[in-house]
Amino acid sequence: MKMLINVPETVVADALRGIAAAHPELTVDVERRVIVRRGAPFEGKVGLVSGGGSGHEPLHGGFVGRGMLTAACPGEVFTSPVPDQMVRAATAVDSGAGVLFIVKNYTGDVLNFDMAAELAEDEGVRVAKVLVNDDVAVIDSTYTAGRRGTSGTLFVEKIAGALAEEGAPLDQVADIARRVNESSRSFSVALTACSTPAKGGPTFDLPDGELELGVGIHGEPGRERRAMMTSGEIADASVEAVVDDLKPDAPLLLLVNGMGGTPLLELYGFAAEVHRVLAERRIPVARTLVGNYVTSLDMSGASVSICQVDEELLRLWDAPVATPGLRWGC
Amino acid sequence: MKMLINVPETVVADALRGIAAAHPELTVDVERRVIVRRGAPFEGKVGLVSGGGSGHEPLHGGFVGRGMLTAACPGEVFTSPVPDQMVRAATAVDSGAGVLFIVKNYTGDVLNFDMAAELAEDEGVRVAKVLVNDDVAVIDSTYTAGRRGTSGTLFVEKIAGALAEEGAPLDQVADIARRVNESSRSFSVALTACSTPAKGGPTFDLPDGELELGVGIHGEPGRERRAMMTSGEIADASVEAVVDDLKPDAPLLLLVNGMGGTPLLELYGFAAEVHRVLAERRIPVARTLVGNYVTSLDMSGASVSICQVDEELLRLWDAPVATPGLRWGC
Repeated sequence: MKMLINVPETVVADALRGIAAAHPELTVDVERRVIVRRGAPFEGKVGLVSGGGSGHEPLHGGFVGRGMLTAACPGEVFTSPVPDQMVRAATAVDSGAGVLFIVKNYTGDVLNFDMAAELAEDEGVRVAKVLVNDDVAVIDSTYTAGRRGTSGTLFVEKIAGALAEEGAPLDQVADIARRVNESSRSFSVALTACSTPAKGGPTFDLPDGELELGVGIHGEPGRERRAMMTSGEIADASVEAVVDDLKPDAPLLLLVNGMGGTPLLELYGFAAEVHRVLAERRIPVARTLVGNYVTSLDMSGASVSICQVDEELLRLWDAPVATPGLRWGC
Repeated sequence: MKMLINVPETVVADALRGIAAAHPELTVDVERRVIVRRGAPFEGKVGLVSGGGSGHEPLHGGFVGRGMLTAACPGEVFTSPVPDQMVRAATAVDSGAGVLFIVKNYTGDVLNFDMAAELAEDEGVRVAKVLVNDDVAVIDSTYTAGRRGTSGTLFVEKIAGALAEEGAPLDQVADIARRVNESSRSFSVALTACSTPAKGGPTFDLPDGELELGVGIHGEPGRERRAMMTSGEIADASVEAVVDDLKPDAPLLLLVNGMGGTPLLELYGFAAEVHRVLAERRIPVARTLVGNYVTSLDMSGASVSICQVDEELLRLWDAPVATPGLRWGC
C-alpha cells in the first residue's frame, strides 16, 4: 500500500507541522501534540477540548477555531492521546470559566480524559465532560463498552462551541453538549478497509463483492456483511438504522459524511438517496452537510448522522464558525 | 472496484440531485446540468461560468457562490460539457455586464466553450474567455494541445470571482483571470490510478512500487514513472517543477491539493514538506490552502500549485467567498 508519507513513525508529527504552516490562526505544539486556537484563553469563555486517535481528520484538530473547539489533542493513528496532552490543552484554554472535555466513547479515550480531568482539577481548572456515543450499529465493540462515538461528534462540537462562544457558563455548555449527543444518531458503511501507516496495508479483510454495514471508524465490525448494494439500498439501510433508533419528532440536521476514500461525486449522489428516503418517511431536514468530516484514513464508504433540533439548537448550528474544516458565517 | 453509486449512467445526475438537496443557495437544473448561484443575474456584475468533466469535485460546481463562480456546467465523468449547457449558464447569469468563460485547456472543453461563446453572443451576451494551462508537467498530452489546466484553476476562479463581486467590468475581470493564470503553476503526482464508474476499475496501470510524476487529472501520462518516493522527496520534485518554471519573484499562494484518495493526515504532512522546500529556497508563502479541491475521483496522490501575488491579487484572494467547497470571510 503506497502512502504519501516519510516514515510511519513521523506521520502525526509531520501532519502537525503542516497544520502549523497552513493555519497561522492556530498554535500548534508539534512536540507535545496540542492544537490551540490562537489567542486562548478567551476572557469569560468556556474552553472546549477534544481529541482522539489521528486518522479521522479534519476531526478534531480541523475543528479548532472560533465557534467550535478551543483545543484538540491528536493521538497516534487510531490510538488515544495521553492525559498529559489533555491537561496541557485544558490549562492553555482555561480563562477561569472552566473547560469541557468532549470524549468519543472508546475505552482508552474515556480513561485518559478521566485521568486528565482529575489532574486538571488539581491544577485549579474546573472540568466537565460529555461522552459522545452516537453510533447505533452495535452495543459494545472492539475498543468500546456501550455505543461508539463517531460522526455525530461534529454536531456536539459545533453546537456546544457556538454556545460557549456566546459566553454561556460551563454547566450550560455541558448540558447542551449532552442534549446534542442524546439527539444524535449515526450509522456507517464500509466498502473497503482502511490502511494504517504502521500496518502498511488494510486493517481488516473485506472481500471484493461485499460491504460492511455498521462499521466503526477504526474498521471495527458492524452489524453484518452483505453482497455489494447500490447507493439507494445503502441509504435505505442507513436511514432505517438511525431513524428507527432516534424516532425523531423534530426537523433534522443531516450529515452525509465520507470515510475518506469515497469521491465527493459519489457522496453527493448518496446524499440525494438519503434525502429521498427521509422524504418518503416524511421526516423534514433543516440543514444538510456533505463531505469528508470524520474519516477513517483511506476507507471507502460513508456515514449518515442525524441530529434532531429545536429552534435553539438550529440557531447555534447556524451560528458563525471559522475552523480549517468547517466554516461559515464569518 | 466497489463504488457508492446506483448505476454508472446516473452518477452525474444523482450527484446533482444531492447538490440541490444540500445547497438551497444554488439553483440546480438536474436535467440540463447547470448549477447557478441563486439570485443570478446580479445587477451590474459580470457572470463567471466554468465547467468541465465531472470527477474533479468540488471543482467546478462546488465553487459556485458569492465571490467565485456564478454558474458551472458539469459534463459526464472526465468528458467535456456540451455548448448547450454553457449557453444556458451564460444567459442565466448575464446581467448585461457580460460573462467570462473560464476554460481548462482540454481540446473538448476549448472547442465547446468556443462554440458556446459564439452562440451566447448571438443571444446578445458579451463573452470573454480565459484559458487555464497551469500544469508544467508536459506540453501536449492525451486530451490537450499545449499545457493542461489543473488545480491552478482554483486561483483563477477565486481571484477573478472576487473582482467580479466588486463590480469590475468584463475586460478587467478577464485581464485579471489571465494574469492569475500566467502567475500560476501546478505539478501533480499519482500514487494510484483513478477508477471511473463507466470502466468500473482503474483507468491506467500503475504498479505497486511505483508512482507517476507529472500525472494529469484524468490519469494522463506525466513526465516519468519512478520507484516509490517519500513525502519529502515528492515535495522536492514537485516544488522544483513549479518553481523552476515560474521563477517567482513575489510571495506565493500555495495550494497543496489532494487527488481524492489521499487521507488529509498525509496531505498535511506533505504540506509540511512543501513548506520546508520553499523555505530552503527562500521563497515566501503568503497563504496556504490544504485539502481536496481539484480531485481525480479516488486517485491517491497530490498536486502542488503556486501563484505569485502582488498586493492586489492577495487582497482579492483574501476577499470573502461563500461556496460549498471554499468559504471564508462571510
